[in-house]
Amino acid sequence: MGGTLEGIRVLDLTHILSGPYATMNLADLGADVIKIERPGMGDGARGTGPFLGAYYSSYFMSINRNKRSVTLDLAHPKGVKVFVELVKRSDVLVENLVPGSLARLGLGYDVLEKHNPRLIYAAISGFGQTGPYAQRPALDIIVQGMSGLMSITGAPGMGPVRVGTSVGDIVAGLYCVIGILAALQERQRSGKGQMLDISMLECQVAMQENAFCRYFATGEVPKPLGTRHPVSVPFQAFQTRDGWVVVAVVGEEAWPLFCSVIDRGDLIGDERFATNWDRCRHYDELAPVLDEIFLHRTTQEWVDAFTAVGVPCGPVNTIDQVVRDPQVLHRQAVVEIAHPTLGPVKAVNNPMRLSRTSPRVRLGAPDLGEHTGEVLREVLGYSNDLLEQLRRDKVIA
Amino acid sequence: MGGTLEGIRVLDLTHILSGPYATMNLADLGADVIKIERPGMGDGARGTGPFLGAYYSSYFMSINRNKRSVTLDLAHPKGVKVFVELVKRSDVLVENLVPGSLARLGLGYDVLEKHNPRLIYAAISGFGQTGPYAQRPALDIIVQGMSGLMSITGAPGMGPVRVGTSVGDIVAGLYCVIGILAALQERQRSGKGQMLDISMLECQVAMQENAFCRYFATGEVPKPLGTRHPVSVPFQAFQTRDGWVVVAVVGEEAWPLFCSVIDRGDLIGDERFATNWDRCRHYDELAPVLDEIFLHRTTQEWVDAFTAVGVPCGPVNTIDQVVRDPQVLHRQAVVEIAHPTLGPVKAVNNPMRLSRTSPRVRLGAPDLGEHTGEVLREVLGYSNDLLEQLRRDKVIA
Repeated sequence: MGGTLEGIRVLDLTHILSGPYATMNLADLGADVIKIERPGMGDGARGTGPFLGAYYSSYFMSINRNKRSVTLDLAHPKGVKVFVELVKRSDVLVENLVPGSLARLGLGYDVLEKHNPRLIYAAISGFGQTGPYAQRPALDIIVQGMSGLMSITGAPGMGPVRVGTSVGDIVAGLYCVIGILAALQERQRSGKGQMLDISMLECQVAMQENAFCRYFATGEVPKPLGTRHPVSVPFQAFQTRDGWVVVAVVGEEAWPLFCSVIDRGDLIGDERFATNWDRCRHYDELAPVLDEIFLHRTTQEWVDAFTAVGVPCGPVNTIDQVVRDPQVLHRQAVVEIAHPTLGPVKAVNNPMRLSRTSPRVRLGAPDLGEHTGEVLREVLGYSNDLLEQLRRDKVIA
Repeated sequence: MGGTLEGIRVLDLTHILSGPYATMNLADLGADVIKIERPGMGDGARGTGPFLGAYYSSYFMSINRNKRSVTLDLAHPKGVKVFVELVKRSDVLVENLVPGSLARLGLGYDVLEKHNPRLIYAAISGFGQTGPYAQRPALDIIVQGMSGLMSITGAPGMGPVRVGTSVGDIVAGLYCVIGILAALQERQRSGKGQMLDISMLECQVAMQENAFCRYFATGEVPKPLGTRHPVSVPFQAFQTRDGWVVVAVVGEEAWPLFCSVIDRGDLIGDERFATNWDRCRHYDELAPVLDEIFLHRTTQEWVDAFTAVGVPCGPVNTIDQVVRDPQVLHRQAVVEIAHPTLGPVKAVNNPMRLSRTSPRVRLGAPDLGEHTGEVLREVLGYSNDLLEQLRRDKVIA
């Protein structure tokens, strides 16, 4: 079975998270992703714990599988030359540096497109390649804050809350992959590459379409609601005897079912709670009643009872519970990657399932420069003598 | 300027959020997205407020621009026939129904691929097309809960918190787009379509790569941290005189800069806080000191001061503040869409910027069945007489 993106070569100048997450998805899909790293240093994620064995960063390993690592010093003129040769033989370049960083090395898009007019040059940055904040450094938490996401996440009346995963990086990475694949599609027709400019901030805004459209429609500023839905009741998490459960009542036919499961048929006829809108208006009267009831059974008991009548529900799982979940196991959402010294290492699988060419974990994350010789021989036809010379010049390591 | 995905026709059987978000991105990129809706009813999102004018759902409008709407009754044998004719002339079909719904109408992938072996059939569901939970209904909050995301989002010691936007739907939609575009790329080589099976639950798991890899590496179950980072200090939101600010100290050189901005040079030499690891261990001593200091200046004053020395920072914006932000305005992250009766309606822009073929908002969201005649004439060559007959048979409306 060939990979979905077999034959697509990606030069990967990314580090830490948003860029590597993008190129991991391309690599999982079968693209040949060549990660270019600085000799000696490499991707900063290599230094981020927790570590497995003496020095293997679990963080780096989790987002760099299926890639090959080549060390190359882009501050050295010979390194620039090697890089340009690689660009000529690649389809895509991805970087998530501060805007202008590659241009300062003489490797901006305007230069590279002359060497390879078919190149798709994708750049992820905190705020985009243009505009007043273009040169500001950004991290996930900064764009989570600036985009409004933290202002609508949290408990009512409390301070802002960061989404527990780096959604600011991840969603930018996903949009970057979409833009690259769309540009490849367009290149089939035009024969030309182009530049893709992804702003983490804008991706966070795009992801909050509902909060923004509500604000545009009503002028009311959306606020954090804990686990509640803005306009559906009940639609939230409840504490149970041994944890938490989420239940979502959608459509008027679901409310009587909900009432029967909680053994409160009397609430069906209660006019304060007759429609979803009534329940929204009288939430403060309904909430304490429900809060008390849910404490009487376990999460699993509630899930079984609501599932039996078709009301959407589920446990609020902790991470250790997720990896033991029967559906997660059935779908192989967690995989083991063979590592030469550590043995099998667990990782989250790619979530795309394609009937003929599904993504696969073929390779673990590379050691720094593990494939330098292999790639330069294979892609550029370099001889061992030439490689030795480059090593002596400290262009590669 | 042609669209990036010009020439790609997408049959869109999606509703509410994850599917429509996916097809909106395809439509923004220039694909011809034909939204098939049930006569009289249409996408349930059309009934979700807040409304503009008498009955225009702002929610529906925010995720269905650039698409054409065709009403078609798939429960009618003639509707099935029309649908199959459309499938033969399309590249992609997207649906987010309960698994098996189309198969029960005789329109499963196994049937449709016989009519069009080049078809890419993409299905989004809560838990995937297979496995013990495949038939369970799911909504954003259910997969946010079951995937562990709610367990790592919130304030320490408090209950779980839902991410304020429907990230369970959105990320599944983005992965769906990636899978479709990758399959189109593969089709160029093989000439064959395939089926894409996207599980919202698995996409949430994939998005939390760091929480899972930390758990796999250490066995410790990740917990909610409010706005804090798991292993960096200070890296969080602080309350200011008039709001909140996020500051991220990364790398040891940033700590002295941070101390100088807060006028606490004495902290630089304090051995309790010398390294990031020291600050993590002594967080409980450092936190009250910093909390107090940040109350003395406004958010803007802190942003200016940290930006001046290059420490990543930003305001925790509310949604109304986001849409006034200079960078958001410069990048046109918000656009106005002309509507025939409502006038210009504001919407969040697509975040991808491509140098030659950037996504564009060409059309507002369609009225129910607005393009039924146009599409059936254009794509299938139907005559007005035939359309009239189908209307009389209530196959279209």
